[in-house]
Amino acid sequence: MSDWQHVYSNFLTPLMFLERSARVFPDKTAVVYGDARYTYRELGERVNRLASALLARGLKKGERVAFICPNTPPMLEAHFGVLLAGGILVSINTRLSGEEIHYILQHSGSRFVFADTEFGDVVGPALEGCPGVEALINIADDPAFPSLEGGEYEAFLAEGSPEPVPWCIEDEYEPITINYTSGTTGRPKGVTFCHRGAYINALGGLLETRFNADSVFMWVVPMFHCNGWCFTWGVTAAAGTHVCSRRFDPSAAWKLIEQEGVTHFNGAPVVLIGLVNDAAALERFPRPITICVGGAPPSPTIIEKVQALGGHILHIYGLTEVYGPFTLCAWQPGWKDLPPQDQAKLLARQGVGYTTGAQVRVVDEQMNDVTRDGATMGEVVMQGNMVMIKYWDDPEATAQAFRGGWFHSGDVAVWHPDGYIELRDRSKDVIISGGENISSIEVEQCLYRHPAVLECAVVGVPHSKWGEAPKGFVTLKPGAEATEADLIAHCREHIAHFKAPCAIAFGALPKTSTGKIQKFLLRNQEWAGHEKMIQG
Amino acid sequence: MSDWQHVYSNFLTPLMFLERSARVFPDKTAVVYGDARYTYRELGERVNRLASALLARGLKKGERVAFICPNTPPMLEAHFGVLLAGGILVSINTRLSGEEIHYILQHSGSRFVFADTEFGDVVGPALEGCPGVEALINIADDPAFPSLEGGEYEAFLAEGSPEPVPWCIEDEYEPITINYTSGTTGRPKGVTFCHRGAYINALGGLLETRFNADSVFMWVVPMFHCNGWCFTWGVTAAAGTHVCSRRFDPSAAWKLIEQEGVTHFNGAPVVLIGLVNDAAALERFPRPITICVGGAPPSPTIIEKVQALGGHILHIYGLTEVYGPFTLCAWQPGWKDLPPQDQAKLLARQGVGYTTGAQVRVVDEQMNDVTRDGATMGEVVMQGNMVMIKYWDDPEATAQAFRGGWFHSGDVAVWHPDGYIELRDRSKDVIISGGENISSIEVEQCLYRHPAVLECAVVGVPHSKWGEAPKGFVTLKPGAEATEADLIAHCREHIAHFKAPCAIAFGALPKTSTGKIQKFLLRNQEWAGHEKMIQG
Repeated sequence: MSDWQHVYSNFLTPLMFLERSARVFPDKTAVVYGDARYTYRELGERVNRLASALLARGLKKGERVAFICPNTPPMLEAHFGVLLAGGILVSINTRLSGEEIHYILQHSGSRFVFADTEFGDVVGPALEGCPGVEALINIADDPAFPSLEGGEYEAFLAEGSPEPVPWCIEDEYEPITINYTSGTTGRPKGVTFCHRGAYINALGGLLETRFNADSVFMWVVPMFHCNGWCFTWGVTAAAGTHVCSRRFDPSAAWKLIEQEGVTHFNGAPVVLIGLVNDAAALERFPRPITICVGGAPPSPTIIEKVQALGGHILHIYGLTEVYGPFTLCAWQPGWKDLPPQDQAKLLARQGVGYTTGAQVRVVDEQMNDVTRDGATMGEVVMQGNMVMIKYWDDPEATAQAFRGGWFHSGDVAVWHPDGYIELRDRSKDVIISGGENISSIEVEQCLYRHPAVLECAVVGVPHSKWGEAPKGFVTLKPGAEATEADLIAHCREHIAHFKAPCAIAFGALPKTSTGKIQKFLLRNQEWAGHEKMIQG
Repeated sequence: MSDWQHVYSNFLTPLMFLERSARVFPDKTAVVYGDARYTYRELGERVNRLASALLARGLKKGERVAFICPNTPPMLEAHFGVLLAGGILVSINTRLSGEEIHYILQHSGSRFVFADTEFGDVVGPALEGCPGVEALINIADDPAFPSLEGGEYEAFLAEGSPEPVPWCIEDEYEPITINYTSGTTGRPKGVTFCHRGAYINALGGLLETRFNADSVFMWVVPMFHCNGWCFTWGVTAAAGTHVCSRRFDPSAAWKLIEQEGVTHFNGAPVVLIGLVNDAAALERFPRPITICVGGAPPSPTIIEKVQALGGHILHIYGLTEVYGPFTLCAWQPGWKDLPPQDQAKLLARQGVGYTTGAQVRVVDEQMNDVTRDGATMGEVVMQGNMVMIKYWDDPEATAQAFRGGWFHSGDVAVWHPDGYIELRDRSKDVIISGGENISSIEVEQCLYRHPAVLECAVVGVPHSKWGEAPKGFVTLKPGAEATEADLIAHCREHIAHFKAPCAIAFGALPKTSTGKIQKFLLRNQEWAGHEKMIQG
């Protein structure tokens, strides 16, 4: 038989993307990491090595393989190698505590753990009392960090063979990855993706961002976050170049953008804030760059600034349960000619489902569509191939999330007359003040329009008269000045008085590893000792 | 319930493309036809009218609806409206004879027939003795042509409603269209497509041609040919603009390219030959234009000429049984810098499978891969989601075509060391001369390099010594001169002497409606009275 037997199927799977790119573009640069460069042939060989080494160690179909790894090449390789071996990839947030990692390893029942040595100090304790874990493999990429007891990644690859590993897919709905939600409270839940959904979301990302074989993708979004919004697979499908980095640093990012010919990157608004305010920032991007912004609603202010640099902003929205991006604020023909501020306001909306088929609605508690008036709030619910298949080993949470046949996002939005949705808040972030619903995002966007504000978060705090009231937490730009009274006055000038913050605190904001501001921490601290239930 | 019920499914179907574009880009121009312009809202409404009118007339799930129509808006509307009603679209080649159309109507069991009045003189007789046909609807687009007895298209739409018609898909493998192969001999076979395959091929076309919402597509390939290579659905998915024309005319095409902002078109090589040699040809295309060439292998000469005009050539290959395009000659990074002739030579190859998953091999009679040496000939076989589900009502022909689990194309190719395939011939077009296999395409490409040659075809003709030998049929460029001896000498200079034509005949070449030269007619005429079996 020929080596074609491994593509002997009609299954929709992201595995076909690397198989094709390694075959059609063997000499094209697949991966850039510091001074290292891999071609697609080499990426394909390393992935076959990883898969065959796992199989040689006895990995069985459907068993879990955990990776605790930043955006370095092994994390990308895992997105193909583990699947190719028939395993399920559990990519774990590198900022979690040992206790959290321990829980995920136990809950997922991971048999192999691959860990970058940078995180040895939390992974070591996390492995204690994990009888299911058969082997730890150190990814000893940076000699500054000591290895734990166990194997080493390059030696592990050497156990395998670069020859094509036959596929073992029996069903395109088979699980391929589990992404544990960062879960601000409660135990993390294991969001489970399948071949079909990953294939569709990856191609959808290419179509929406116009990514092609000439494109160069800079990794900013962590690959452990919804498998890098499925761009691990998408960039590979297009045979574009992956530019990897151990961590995001604005000055280093500017250098990569210049030197590596970056045409695309994805990131949370906080990344853009870092980039535009960095000392190394250029006057303009050296070439057209498409930037997918998601993870939190970007303020019109930051959108305007990035567009002024020549960046093309695509605002996308989704969550782990929908493979990352699910909607985008699709550009309309007339928008290009609008004044930047109007453009930015339209772009701050979360928009409409992907072309590849993502159904999204905003509904009331009876699952009826809310009026499309841009004012009535409801919950965002989703359906389609780009929705997860389940929470791993948690049928109750799965049933709860899918009540009524639609996935319930927990996000509160309005529906505009043009069909675009716009987030107002996470359910838990809505501030109820004197019976009025206040969108914390609306107040934050108002604060962002003040020239001295670098970052901000608004949460409801106890208020003797109104029950609760908005309070702003603000980081000022270096060298900029503004008083509490200045900022409150600024808000009262632009939004309804009852929505303006009752107080402002200045300082750094608590954030998750993916750059999301942890409002629940601010809320907890304000409500400590008060009656209101704190649910995070 | 809301109007969302009709998208209540996870099925992969091209229906989602129009639903989305009509919702997200209602005011964007969907269709241009002469002075007429339709928005996506209007296209959506007309399609809902067509579907609901068919349902009101009693169309049942899975019943066939035939269209005999050029590339005018109703033909595009049928690609959504018939499917939306649960029917199966039978789009019939407008150049067929009454007898052939009669056969197709009978074999497909079509219940409704929609026919452009231009073809009334063949459709009228074709309908005689078709008891299954319940109604004929005239598409009376051009008043120059008289209507047959029956209804009229716009009046038919008026019977329906513009409101969304609920989907009735129960399985994404359900048939949606039947495309009868033009069948050079024997009865035409009904190539059957399904929702899933159409969805995947349509998105694949967008990715390979980099077609997006800013793109404008000029219709040249007939929509009755593999549903317009699936661009009926693809262009709609991207919310690009369809520029329709009743017929292809080079001068008119140049005008459309200039006036309508055309960025993409697809066509057979004969179209390109017509364009570059037209009196109205511009010095250069007014903007970057991507041209998919397929249907027959383009000669390096024509590729070079189109590239010189600033056109970006994508050479695609496929056949009706694989939804039209299946492979493309994917551009490699280094090719841009090659001399035009070398570039054109590489681009004349049929290449590799689409990114969306198209498996292609070149095999010997035992289904083993041929050596990838660019010389050993074998048959092209295909597998994947982009292969038809069956021949309509013909299990025997289906089984024969899929022997060994792969679709057998009947095309003869070599496999290059870089994995690209290159067609040598249709099985039946290979010339066996004195025991040597001669690729008629190779001889044709050599003739095309002669400056006086406009079009040519080479077939095997009886030869007393060698059994058969190549003969050339040539159309010279207007005003150009070349003798039989000139052209034979030209060939003997460039290819092996045994491959050079033994004779040359001058004149117009017989062609199918899709621009393919009908070699079987030339062959039949040469072999009349000889012993060799004529199989077309």
